[in-house]
Amino acid sequence: MEKNEIPEVVIGRLPVYIQKLNQLLREGREIISSKELAEHIGTTASQIRKDLSYFGGFGKQGSGYNIIKLLETLRGILNLNHPWKVVLVGAGHLGSALLSYQGFLQKGFEIVLALDSNPSLIGTKIAGIAIEPVERLEEFVKAHQVKLAILTVPASEAQKVANRLVESGIEAIVNYAPFTLKCPEGVHVSDIDPVLLLQKMTYYLE
Amino acid sequence: MEKNEIPEVVIGRLPVYIQKLNQLLREGREIISSKELAEHIGTTASQIRKDLSYFGGFGKQGSGYNIIKLLETLRGILNLNHPWKVVLVGAGHLGSALLSYQGFLQKGFEIVLALDSNPSLIGTKIAGIAIEPVERLEEFVKAHQVKLAILTVPASEAQKVANRLVESGIEAIVNYAPFTLKCPEGVHVSDIDPVLLLQKMTYYLE
Repeated sequence: MEKNEIPEVVIGRLPVYIQKLNQLLREGREIISSKELAEHIGTTASQIRKDLSYFGGFGKQGSGYNIIKLLETLRGILNLNHPWKVVLVGAGHLGSALLSYQGFLQKGFEIVLALDSNPSLIGTKIAGIAIEPVERLEEFVKAHQVKLAILTVPASEAQKVANRLVESGIEAIVNYAPFTLKCPEGVHVSDIDPVLLLQKMTYYLE
Repeated sequence: MEKNEIPEVVIGRLPVYIQKLNQLLREGREIISSKELAEHIGTTASQIRKDLSYFGGFGKQGSGYNIIKLLETLRGILNLNHPWKVVLVGAGHLGSALLSYQGFLQKGFEIVLALDSNPSLIGTKIAGIAIEPVERLEEFVKAHQVKLAILTVPASEAQKVANRLVESGIEAIVNYAPFTLKCPEGVHVSDIDPVLLLQKMTYYLE
């Protein structure tokens, strides 16, 4: 099956499976049924089996999944068998918090570069990462050959910075700015705006 | 049409429309066609018209949408015509950054309560909000009659705190902890884990 024939929503669930399988592995589990995995995640066994069927067979029904093998396969599908370099733009409150977050490195994403426009930040280090001037974004991104970016700049700057990132070779952006980015086809954007999520959920509340 | 008959993915797009319409309004625009709105967001005009058709008529085709009226209607659909109170649990790096973020209040979400377990944080204020002891979560959440929560605690604490929030009347959680929560039916959870988003996007990269 071609890469783009698999629904994006299926791809979006695979990292959740990885997260839960890792947790079960740490708890000492070796085998898990689709039914039990589904219960842990809050979905259905048939959903999990259907999602995995896009990628071929995963052992026969009834015997459960070998957690280590399933993790390896899922990591392979998502290209997670090697580490990824990440650039972060915007080292304010939120950017600093993300630079200090150990979860990226633990899961194979190394923030190799942090950029900001604030002269009082440039040259300082946050969690061991030197803050470089955003004026030199193109130069640094190209030198590091990085394809992933985290955008934590104000909304007013977001599109401008995103354009420069894409021009410099960035192919995927996690966007924390409260601004809907417009990027060329082939560039992947994931928006993280807690307000949008709150607004979606209030629909269901009285 | 019943509330739960409208696909969740449609509801999830309405806040994005609101975000972009607000931006156009600030730029002085009064009327916009579905075609132009679609171009701004990076979707199609037919997608927007189809999404809006779930909620009845929005003016006749060809004449464009009145931005103020469309905003009012969308806000009404999502129950955003009144402010919402929010509790934040976990005032570490990320929690502090979120407490300092002005975007919540600007968009009608007031963080009225912040809780943490760290004795050195309790009693201090961040962005004017006093940090209260998480031991008293139930008491405070009930007293404030708050239904929305932002969870910025470590993964190891997330499920335990989520259970206590739900017990205290919380109906929707924005979960920043890198842990897939299991909540009872009727409780809405939106996960914000940047690692999951990065892992989804690496699928499409070489």
